[in-house]
Amino acid sequence: MNQRGRDVDEEPVGPVPRKRTGGRSARVREAVLTATLDQVAEHGIEGLTIGDVAARAGVAETTIYRRWGSRTALIAEAVTELAAVGNPVPDTGTLRGDLRLLAEQIAQLISRPGIARLVGTTIALSADPEVAAARHHFWEDRFQRSSQVIVRAVERGELPGDVNARAVIETLSAPLYFRLLVGDEPLGSAFIARCVDDTLTLHAKPV
Amino acid sequence: MNQRGRDVDEEPVGPVPRKRTGGRSARVREAVLTATLDQVAEHGIEGLTIGDVAARAGVAETTIYRRWGSRTALIAEAVTELAAVGNPVPDTGTLRGDLRLLAEQIAQLISRPGIARLVGTTIALSADPEVAAARHHFWEDRFQRSSQVIVRAVERGELPGDVNARAVIETLSAPLYFRLLVGDEPLGSAFIARCVDDTLTLHAKPV
Repeated sequence: MNQRGRDVDEEPVGPVPRKRTGGRSARVREAVLTATLDQVAEHGIEGLTIGDVAARAGVAETTIYRRWGSRTALIAEAVTELAAVGNPVPDTGTLRGDLRLLAEQIAQLISRPGIARLVGTTIALSADPEVAAARHHFWEDRFQRSSQVIVRAVERGELPGDVNARAVIETLSAPLYFRLLVGDEPLGSAFIARCVDDTLTLHAKPV
Repeated sequence: MNQRGRDVDEEPVGPVPRKRTGGRSARVREAVLTATLDQVAEHGIEGLTIGDVAARAGVAETTIYRRWGSRTALIAEAVTELAAVGNPVPDTGTLRGDLRLLAEQIAQLISRPGIARLVGTTIALSADPEVAAARHHFWEDRFQRSSQVIVRAVERGELPGDVNARAVIETLSAPLYFRLLVGDEPLGSAFIARCVDDTLTLHAKPV
């Protein structure tokens, strides 16, 4: 992470503590990340400047540079946070229940205003190493969180012990994101149910 | 189509005849579509102007306006053509063989330089009605062509008569395009084989 020039007191890699309520530092962080997402939704990644984010969040530009180091590190953290906050990793007691919640979380995320623009831009600008790093950060966080669902399902005997957690998450997620890409079909509950059924058919142990 | 201001001698909607070799009109069309793709690959959809395409193709701007009417109609036709030319609809005699070829064609298309930028931009700018129309045109063409594979498989008894052709194509395509989106994993032959196997598992009739 030091390659991005972040401070040593930055967020640790991997699952980020969600409950950092209270304290000026936490308030600044939240204000900056919210302002970042608002700016991206309105102007795209290309149009985002640290100066605009600072003005919108009511903090000094230097605060942002000291904490995040770069524009793209800032965007990466804001989007990863967006996908994680309010979306605790499901733990319903069954693989089906957990996959259903995961799929609903993805559908909600995809449907947010500004997300199409954000996702599209990260693909369009993926030749840019900073954008590629931000995208990588986002997806690794998604896969890492979701894999807790797979680990618990293996413990319950619902998935084989040698299951490829990432492949299961891919099977569940791909059709949802594909509809974001094609753009003409809704992410309704019938479609979500089909994604869950297909994932169970392809990966779950026969009962 | 008239809403886009095209001429009456334009390409018909639906499957486009591929073999329009010979003739100045065909040569102009090919030069313009090739120049369009080159411009998009280098400068993105946002950076494409009819003037630049005309200069690159060695034709008059008015020729392009008369034939395609708009920047986006031009891009839509160029990309649809890119995906279709050199990629005849597979007809190997088995559903497995056809799905394998389709998946390989998609993997090759996704791996082309400039495609990430193009796909990303169509998502990012999907709020623009012209971009949305271009995207719609591209995907409808893809689904329509591919559905011939499904129709033949139903005739051979490999798929149930009430199969949803679009759902089969979605199952096959979604994981491939998802990897374009995530960006960190290759589209190798093992992955392609898994996409085909999964599609057959989920949709084919039990033997």
